Amino acid sequence: MQENDPRQRMVVAAADMLAVRGFNATSVRELAKHAGAPLGSVYHYFPGGKAQLTAEAVRWADERTAAVLARPAAEGPAAVLRDFLGMWRKILVDSDFHRGCPVLAVAVQDLPGDDAAPRDAAVFAFSAWSAGMATALRAAGLDHGVATGTATLVIAAVEGAVAMSRAERSVEPLDVVGAQLQQLLSSLGCPLRS
Amino acid sequence: MQENDPRQRMVVAAADMLAVRGFNATSVRELAKHAGAPLGSVYHYFPGGKAQLTAEAVRWADERTAAVLARPAAEGPAAVLRDFLGMWRKILVDSDFHRGCPVLAVAVQDLPGDDAAPRDAAVFAFSAWSAGMATALRAAGLDHGVATGTATLVIAAVEGAVAMSRAERSVEPLDVVGAQLQQLLSSLGCPLRS
Repeated sequence: MQENDPRQRMVVAAADMLAVRGFNATSVRELAKHAGAPLGSVYHYFPGGKAQLTAEAVRWADERTAAVLARPAAEGPAAVLRDFLGMWRKILVDSDFHRGCPVLAVAVQDLPGDDAAPRDAAVFAFSAWSAGMATALRAAGLDHGVATGTATLVIAAVEGAVAMSRAERSVEPLDVVGAQLQQLLSSLGCPLRS
Repeated sequence: MQENDPRQRMVVAAADMLAVRGFNATSVRELAKHAGAPLGSVYHYFPGGKAQLTAEAVRWADERTAAVLARPAAEGPAAVLRDFLGMWRKILVDSDFHRGCPVLAVAVQDLPGDDAAPRDAAVFAFSAWSAGMATALRAAGLDHGVATGTATLVIAAVEGAVAMSRAERSVEPLDVVGAQLQQLLSSLGCPLRS
């Protein structure tokens, strides 16, 4: 999809609003305004309304993040973690700590109505990120159980640390948690090379 | 304060709404309704409005949680972690995964206006919880740096895992992360006794 594809622009704008303000605080009207699109065009592209647009925004954020987790797999799990941490650090610093994780934003709010699509997309995203990390850990020789457990810990800890850093308006919690996780990988025989 | 103190009832209701729906989605009108109080009485008790009430709700949640982290310190850090995990597990299961952490809810949303009180309360809560865990780790013989880093990792990971469990409507992420953290404490010489 092209950057100036109006449908895609709405998805990116929705992911951005989720990352800043959360799910329930974001109305379709504000999403349209943020994307520079008329309200009617949101319903044209997303007949399922806010739930559909939110689910697609979560999937968009998921895919961008999964790509970061998949890229340096050949360099080992510590490099995957380094790049994952680096991505969040840049998002926090570049936004002056106003932007967090849109997937976490969906996970921590009960969504009105019965549409489970946004939450399902969040569950899929967390699973995909954990799986990406677990794949790198298994490729480094860890057994399935250790790799899966460690990967879930890494994703949970980084998500929690991003929220703590955002509240503190400081990268310190993310940096401290990142160093602890690198140490853990190192103790499992997967140190950061280079 | 008594349970049927109207002011206290509003604080508890606000913490509950934060845990379920997040900050920006919660209006003062809804808070009043949830607390069974007239709208005017909210402004009577909380002249600073939503920001003041939210900050007090975060502090209330903070104090309840800090008490859990302080209680079994004599039993060692693994017991502190066990009770912290147990508290979240009960909150998730009892609410059928509709209730999460009100402090995290405040941390992941930009708050409208300039009132920093709710976010300051969230930062204070995360610091207090980390400090509680760090105190137990130092009491078990860990040096200051290791204790502080490990404590920050524990709080970040548990907060992230609560959000993941809530999205999945399953205790599995919390249980997996909890087991990983217990293993980490054990590797630091602090196994769970019992």
